[in-house]
Amino acid sequence: MRKYRVLIDSKDEKGLVYKISKVFFENDMNIEKNDEYVDKENNKFFNRSEVTGHIEADELEKKLKEALPKANIKVIVPKKKKVVLMATKESHVLGDILIRHYDGELPIEIVAVVSNYDFLRPLVEKFKIDYFHVSHADMQRSEHEEKILSLLEMFGPIDYIVLAKYMRILTPDFVQKYENRIINIHHSFLPAFIGANPYKQAYDRGVKIIGATAHFVNNNLDEGPIIDQDVIRVDHTYSWQEMRKAGRDIEKTVLARALRLAVEDRIFVYANKTVIF
Amino acid sequence: MRKYRVLIDSKDEKGLVYKISKVFFENDMNIEKNDEYVDKENNKFFNRSEVTGHIEADELEKKLKEALPKANIKVIVPKKKKVVLMATKESHVLGDILIRHYDGELPIEIVAVVSNYDFLRPLVEKFKIDYFHVSHADMQRSEHEEKILSLLEMFGPIDYIVLAKYMRILTPDFVQKYENRIINIHHSFLPAFIGANPYKQAYDRGVKIIGATAHFVNNNLDEGPIIDQDVIRVDHTYSWQEMRKAGRDIEKTVLARALRLAVEDRIFVYANKTVIF
Amino acid sequence: MRKYRVLIDSKDEKGLVYKISKVFFENDMNIEKNDEYVDKENNKFFNRSEVTGHIEADELEKKLKEALPKANIKVIVPKKKKVVLMATKESHVLGDILIRHYDGELPIEIVAVVSNYDFLRPLVEKFKIDYFHVSHADMQRSEHEEKILSLLEMFGPIDYIVLAKYMRILTPDFVQKYENRIINIHHSFLPAFIGANPYKQAYDRGVKIIGATAHFVNNNLDEGPIIDQDVIRVDHTYSWQEMRKAGRDIEKTVLARALRLAVEDRIFVYANKTVIF
Amino acid sequence: MRKYRVLIDSKDEKGLVYKISKVFFENDMNIEKNDEYVDKENNKFFNRSEVTGHIEADELEKKLKEALPKANIKVIVPKKKKVVLMATKESHVLGDILIRHYDGELPIEIVAVVSNYDFLRPLVEKFKIDYFHVSHADMQRSEHEEKILSLLEMFGPIDYIVLAKYMRILTPDFVQKYENRIINIHHSFLPAFIGANPYKQAYDRGVKIIGATAHFVNNNLDEGPIIDQDVIRVDHTYSWQEMRKAGRDIEKTVLARALRLAVEDRIFVYANKTVIF
Repeated sequence: MRKYRVLIDSKDEKGLVYKISKVFFENDMNIEKNDEYVDKENNKFFNRSEVTGHIEADELEKKLKEALPKANIKVIVPKKKKVVLMATKESHVLGDILIRHYDGELPIEIVAVVSNYDFLRPLVEKFKIDYFHVSHADMQRSEHEEKILSLLEMFGPIDYIVLAKYMRILTPDFVQKYENRIINIHHSFLPAFIGANPYKQAYDRGVKIIGATAHFVNNNLDEGPIIDQDVIRVDHTYSWQEMRKAGRDIEKTVLARALRLAVEDRIFVYANKTVIF
Repeated sequence: MRKYRVLIDSKDEKGLVYKISKVFFENDMNIEKNDEYVDKENNKFFNRSEVTGHIEADELEKKLKEALPKANIKVIVPKKKKVVLMATKESHVLGDILIRHYDGELPIEIVAVVSNYDFLRPLVEKFKIDYFHVSHADMQRSEHEEKILSLLEMFGPIDYIVLAKYMRILTPDFVQKYENRIINIHHSFLPAFIGANPYKQAYDRGVKIIGATAHFVNNNLDEGPIIDQDVIRVDHTYSWQEMRKAGRDIEKTVLARALRLAVEDRIFVYANKTVIF
Repeated sequence: MRKYRVLIDSKDEKGLVYKISKVFFENDMNIEKNDEYVDKENNKFFNRSEVTGHIEADELEKKLKEALPKANIKVIVPKKKKVVLMATKESHVLGDILIRHYDGELPIEIVAVVSNYDFLRPLVEKFKIDYFHVSHADMQRSEHEEKILSLLEMFGPIDYIVLAKYMRILTPDFVQKYENRIINIHHSFLPAFIGANPYKQAYDRGVKIIGATAHFVNNNLDEGPIIDQDVIRVDHTYSWQEMRKAGRDIEKTVLARALRLAVEDRIFVYANKTVIF
Repeated sequence: MRKYRVLIDSKDEKGLVYKISKVFFENDMNIEKNDEYVDKENNKFFNRSEVTGHIEADELEKKLKEALPKANIKVIVPKKKKVVLMATKESHVLGDILIRHYDGELPIEIVAVVSNYDFLRPLVEKFKIDYFHVSHADMQRSEHEEKILSLLEMFGPIDYIVLAKYMRILTPDFVQKYENRIINIHHSFLPAFIGANPYKQAYDRGVKIIGATAHFVNNNLDEGPIIDQDVIRVDHTYSWQEMRKAGRDIEKTVLARALRLAVEDRIFVYANKTVIF
């Protein structure tokens, strides 16, 4: 028995569920999980199914395309996604992913860790994962990114790039090459406190709750489609450094949840938002 | 255009989504919302659809029954559900429902409030809702319940009975008459602290979080299918009376959420659990 | 036995706790609750004590002033605070406060409800509370506010003004008259989504969590000191209207919590922040 | 300047804060943080102060004892606490502590990891921490524990033993030797689901929220004083294995928070409860 994840989005119209399920039925497939969402405002239809059967993936895709000629259709064979982690100097988020990966919790293959410092090498190498130091010292941003891009190409096809507290802003050129495939963790409850040192900003504003946001990266800093968010209570006794410390726990869990959603093919992106099944 | 909620559950087997959506398609109906769940452990299939079309309800039901002869099928025309509230002396939960109802927030018609005390009459009558005092003084439990049951019958068909802090235990006879239609709010995070004064129990145990649980009532006290739960943090400075006060907010919101799920026909009950779409 | 709340703030220096507790000790008073906070960044000291004893309030205040000549000292006799509620057309927050008040949950006296519409009169009058309709139709903002201010003066001393979804912006003149005594509920997780229709803004941004913020009003819209905040999860299936509906529960509870903190004299305001004991 | 944490508990009586702060004042000390709690029900007083000054620790303790002869007084010099971790086969909680420790987040020295299996050795040794495998195979419980106790004694004085998913029940003899110094993480919202496989129990009961509880171990399984708890929402789509996976995140954060509270000397234990400052 083969197992597929089928992702379909299209303009909404009558009969879509019927046409999809007809293909599954006529090919003797079983639907194990089926989620659907109609966005009436934008007249869009989204469907994600987990199905089993004997048909080959490309044959299934072909038949779905015949049944829904105008839809976007992806038939995905579940397997470990190839992920590159990028980090700077902070170890807590990176370390958390490494431990989760070690623990078998995330269905990913960590191709490599890339950093603009050599600082995290000892941690990464404990887990027998390749570490690449691409210093940005004495370099233009574009030059530095080119070096990283060459490195990434060397790795072959990559499914996702995870910015595990990578503290440099990526250029539009870079971002465009991995559209909706770069996941960032921002240490605030976006859209509050965009930009540098959000914990300091939160402290100065006197908030009673701080947050963390995982999102796809687009060309505007911290403004890409949000995947997941979480919050934690603070009070007047917290300095901004203590807020930062408290925030680490949600940075870790939110990024891990977002990454899992991505590698399980549960996310549709449109209109700068995410539909998550 | 007519609007229906279609609830279907059955033994799981291939082709169910196809057969259901085929009926909708062939009758020129539009699926606005569609949720499905397969419980592999129990081999059960659940489906809830919100559909629009020109077909009459009983015609749609007939066609669905032909397509899925072994399934349980309900075609529901959305309308205000008839609800009877039962209470004792505490006003916060009852008052909250009255205000939400006044505010148009809950799609219900409050048929009446029934209480074993006359205490809450002034509050209820502010909202021009009938109040019935059925005292249990000098009465056997069965006798008291018979009086309530006669009253309920007098009201005509009722969709749900909501126990808004009704502090008496209902007998199996009573419960059976309204199976999966009596909603209770228990002021603890069930299954912790079953029974009397859960806040005192929580205080004695030194918990750091307290909860509230809305559930359907069955024959075992506080053991019916859970609809919704919520929690709130407490600490060592809370007396049990302060826990009770803090808990009121979640009692109110959890019961209101559960009631809304019920009257929007979003709940399936089986195996002493709820499937909620 | 008399009971007092003693609030002291001053520049931080050695011996403050000693000097305060010495006054209590020498006057044979018992400290039932004592909270202290030192803000090292601003070198500020805050202390709130709940004490009992036989000394008169002004005598106690005098002795504390002698012991700490440079501190701000308030000796407060706990009693019901006088509160004026202001609202516009939405009933859920106002209704919630009315029910809590009816229930005896809030230690306040509701002096009156003031609204720029006559819409909420029936609700308010159910609870035998005075309702004043001050229309803003065909009026300059300043003229409208003057009418409200005259009305407020007529009521005699007021402790707090609660904006229970009062949808007009108050002028600096108005705000100044009730500095740190006007409490507003903003239906977003401030500082995100300042201004009009925050639920629409949140929907457009595709957030996964929405919030509510209770704060003192100052001269910049939605930028006063935050008292309390809370959040609730949403997902892609929520329209902004559904977000608004879901947000009501936290608007109500956050405002109620903030009001309780205020009327129990638990809040210090400084540097556009709150210290809450 | 020396820095101390001073922990005092005693029967409640007038003048305690005065007497404590007098000692600090007369010895020219500064109070940086001061928390106090009076449990009226049990007539108990608790005080924790963070103070700085030039006096030696034993001199300070002596003076406090003179001022409060009947109180329990601890003057603690902040330093890294010595912690032994015990685990069985699951790596997520243990790995999380190792990463946090590596990251400098926890003020602890990990003396060793002790396990009844050799399974986690590779993970632990990555971090250059000693790993001791004490198999329980073919052994009576008492015999196995004696072996562990001998090992622990070999390490010299230990501040805390952390059961990072150590899946064996400790005997009263063992527990007594480390009273209020053994911290366990139980993977449920205690007191719900005591004992084996709480996620399966939670699944069977159909709860909508699952939890994790960190507590000191006493002689009754899962019934020791609770330090911290947290929860996470689940729904009908979660199998118990998925609940277990979702619960990992809160197991990790709750245990880490509890451990930090312990090693920062913030916890008083009495009446099978914790007072936490």
